[in-house]
Amino acid sequence: MADPLFDKIALVGIGLIGSSLARVIRRKNLARRISISTRRAGTLERARELELGDAYSIDPAEAVADADLVVVSVPVGSSGEVAESIAPALKPGAIVTDVGSTKRSVIAQMEPVLPKNVHFIPGHPLAGTEKSGPDAGFADLFENRWCIFTPLPDTDPAALEKLSEFWRRCGSNVDTMDPAHHDMVLAIVSHLPHIIAYNIVGTADDLQTVTKSEVIKYSASGFRDFTRLAASDPTMWRDVCLHNKDAILEMLARFSEDLASLQRAIRWGDGEKLFDLFTRTRAIRRSIIEAGQEIDAPDFGRHGADPADGDKG
Amino acid sequence: MADPLFDKIALVGIGLIGSSLARVIRRKNLARRISISTRRAGTLERARELELGDAYSIDPAEAVADADLVVVSVPVGSSGEVAESIAPALKPGAIVTDVGSTKRSVIAQMEPVLPKNVHFIPGHPLAGTEKSGPDAGFADLFENRWCIFTPLPDTDPAALEKLSEFWRRCGSNVDTMDPAHHDMVLAIVSHLPHIIAYNIVGTADDLQTVTKSEVIKYSASGFRDFTRLAASDPTMWRDVCLHNKDAILEMLARFSEDLASLQRAIRWGDGEKLFDLFTRTRAIRRSIIEAGQEIDAPDFGRHGADPADGDKG
Repeated sequence: MADPLFDKIALVGIGLIGSSLARVIRRKNLARRISISTRRAGTLERARELELGDAYSIDPAEAVADADLVVVSVPVGSSGEVAESIAPALKPGAIVTDVGSTKRSVIAQMEPVLPKNVHFIPGHPLAGTEKSGPDAGFADLFENRWCIFTPLPDTDPAALEKLSEFWRRCGSNVDTMDPAHHDMVLAIVSHLPHIIAYNIVGTADDLQTVTKSEVIKYSASGFRDFTRLAASDPTMWRDVCLHNKDAILEMLARFSEDLASLQRAIRWGDGEKLFDLFTRTRAIRRSIIEAGQEIDAPDFGRHGADPADGDKG
Repeated sequence: MADPLFDKIALVGIGLIGSSLARVIRRKNLARRISISTRRAGTLERARELELGDAYSIDPAEAVADADLVVVSVPVGSSGEVAESIAPALKPGAIVTDVGSTKRSVIAQMEPVLPKNVHFIPGHPLAGTEKSGPDAGFADLFENRWCIFTPLPDTDPAALEKLSEFWRRCGSNVDTMDPAHHDMVLAIVSHLPHIIAYNIVGTADDLQTVTKSEVIKYSASGFRDFTRLAASDPTMWRDVCLHNKDAILEMLARFSEDLASLQRAIRWGDGEKLFDLFTRTRAIRRSIIEAGQEIDAPDFGRHGADPADGDKG
């Protein structure tokens, strides 16, 4: 196995992403030491029980001391607070990165607070599941997923390359992007889908004419697909909504316009328009499967996992 | 194995549902003979190559002659036409059922046309995948799924029981419901999710600021979940939209109202409201898993099927 990339990595936040990083760092020998910090004592204790690191501290400043790489994996609304806590303790020359799903807001919160003698490189691994917490992580999580960096104008190329190498060894493909463009891309590929999923599940939950037990019983006919995204971490997603507001509102406006048009086609019985849209959308899934970003099995492979599954309208 | 329930079953339409029925009928010995009819010569030829039945005919009237059970598995917009074609050829006392996702419309199309000396029992197995055609079917499709009947006021209880037994032997749980209530339930658990999925995929496809290749590349962060439903059969879904218009428009109106309220919470930074909704929706997935209608594995078990998968915002 290759020599460790870093002497010490500090993981601030040990949820799904942080704990998956801990596992892959260990498995791929990416650091000699892992120190872990998280806000809640119970979560820290659980990380210790799972033996995710070498040192554990409630105090993020203690965890980041001497670290060559610091990965902040907290809800984006807590980025500024974490940056303030760790700033005085950072080792000169350390690389500091994050995993947040919004980048302009994270940069605005962290960049002004961090010392100039560290390399702050905002990052975002597009990986995860609907589960959260230190038990939910696994070493394969980043395999074949993308990690997007949004470097600042003065980012040191050597530091960026080292961080890129770290993520590649975690299994990811790496990409760089302007922060504003990142936030727009994520608004459509991730934030809007989650918000729509939360919304439709909420609508179903509120109905009077159809009972909740009917919704649950008959959910395999389509609805259950949405419940996965709508089971994602509420704190994380509240923060995403609050911190990528402009791009999300833009995408919501487009979605609502399109929905109004579709609704009109249904009301007026415009079968041709419906057929055209329903045909066009079919091609996109094929492209996603060909790009290696989705499994090529009917019903998400549910039938493979459990022969008792399927769905239709 | 138990004696066959029927001497001859006729399958009119041999797509995902029809061909899954053919396979399970054979596997479970539910009929002595299977006759198959479908409109397109190429599809019929494919059914023959797959050896799905014992007799094949382009003419549905020929297929249903002497059949004790006729299952019409065609897009709901074609129900009336099929009923007219088969009506003169049906054997007195035969059971005629369908699998359509809308029930009031199917009843309105078929009931007046079918002879009074057959048992017409509208049905709807809530099972399927995003694939279509005779190759897409499989014998396990109905296992542990629900089949809903919407019997007419004069339905013969013995015929209903026999059809129920048929679906139970196919692996399904059976339920009965008023047709109007069925259409309302399906509008929320199936039709709205499909329409929303089609719409969001269409919105992403139309964007200028984010390219299609970016949408595909980064789709694992949420978007890809929607592409599955949006890859469903366009003809089937066009017909569902046209034939369950009132219930769908009702659900779309509720969804849009809720979305406007969520949009407002995002615009005004109402974190508490967002957090409350995102917490409430999480519980529903748990209930669906407990009801046996969803697999209990993160990310739909995609990681089990292919270790290179995952998603997050």
